[in-house]
Amino acid sequence: MRIRKKKWVHPFLETEDQYLLKENLKGQYLQKYPFSKLILEVGMGMGDFIISSAKEHRDVLYIGLEKDETCVAKTILKAQEAKLDNLLIINDNAQKLCDYFEDEEVDMIYLQFSDPWPKKGHYKRRLTYETFLRNYMAILKNKATIYFKTDNEGLYCFSLPSMTNFGFKLVEMSLDYHADGKKYPMTGYEEKFIDQGMKIYYALFQKDKN
Amino acid sequence: MRIRKKKWVHPFLETEDQYLLKENLKGQYLQKYPFSKLILEVGMGMGDFIISSAKEHRDVLYIGLEKDETCVAKTILKAQEAKLDNLLIINDNAQKLCDYFEDEEVDMIYLQFSDPWPKKGHYKRRLTYETFLRNYMAILKNKATIYFKTDNEGLYCFSLPSMTNFGFKLVEMSLDYHADGKKYPMTGYEEKFIDQGMKIYYALFQKDKN
Repeated sequence: MRIRKKKWVHPFLETEDQYLLKENLKGQYLQKYPFSKLILEVGMGMGDFIISSAKEHRDVLYIGLEKDETCVAKTILKAQEAKLDNLLIINDNAQKLCDYFEDEEVDMIYLQFSDPWPKKGHYKRRLTYETFLRNYMAILKNKATIYFKTDNEGLYCFSLPSMTNFGFKLVEMSLDYHADGKKYPMTGYEEKFIDQGMKIYYALFQKDKN
Repeated sequence: MRIRKKKWVHPFLETEDQYLLKENLKGQYLQKYPFSKLILEVGMGMGDFIISSAKEHRDVLYIGLEKDETCVAKTILKAQEAKLDNLLIINDNAQKLCDYFEDEEVDMIYLQFSDPWPKKGHYKRRLTYETFLRNYMAILKNKATIYFKTDNEGLYCFSLPSMTNFGFKLVEMSLDYHADGKKYPMTGYEEKFIDQGMKIYYALFQKDKN
């Protein structure tokens, strides 16, 4: 998500040290934070989903990755208000995931409503392009899943071939996620789309190596 | 496709011997019929697609498989009218494909608007259930494709995981086949659906063994 950068953001992030990851904890997250699982959201945007999830599952450490500073700052404000102790935010690009996580360190990845990059010349920027998939495949535990949602047909039809051809197992899919009665917390985007009567496309992938 | 059986059908098929396969030519189709390729439609229904395709590509031997006798007879009438010499019809069930074709004998499979069998207890009858996939995988040449279309969301969302988990590569997909401007001949069902403004789901799979 790209939004206009606000003046207060940078100084705020300079001093914030509860939620914003400043010391790299690669390989040590669950030693430092004593939770049962580590769940990562890649491109968390304004954080509505990860905040709701962290509230709902207090035994899980949630880590949100987001390159946009304003999104990071706004998410942290929400986390402060909710007094969460099971959330960390990494302000960086998904290309660098392997700098932050050991192989097989992550229990699950959420990838939701990421930028569709509709121009063919920009497909390499899609978070389901193979350069990113290499990172997900490395940091996920075996049998762990990637939970993927989008409102964008082009991104969806790109992602299923890309993910399965890279070696992820396609466990299930839906072309109308909410009609199927699933009840996970919604992202900010998702609430808007649903209000507009749009359909949400969903797929669940799994790392399944013998 | 299931339609009411007409009285003339059985006697007609008893005597027809140009299009209806009566002598099994397993492994010998392209010796007996000197065409460049062998393309199979599994569940050809009333034959509109295969007749149009055979007219359009005179250098290809088309074989339609269909278990319903009335559909078979009606397709043969259309073939007679078009004086086709590059079409054969097999009146049998897709479970028996390996009785009719050698391993790696088939250049392409069309699988279009097959019965969605919506009840969970009937999923095994879907033509993308793994018992059928085993046959397709066997009889297709390596790198050959399966061209899959349906109007049924349930069948589509079942088939992509089923096919990819069985080992077929998902080459491309579309949730609105005609919006993307593809121009293959349409099946009879498809023309009706398009007239009703319905979307056609499409996927192209490939056998890709090293």
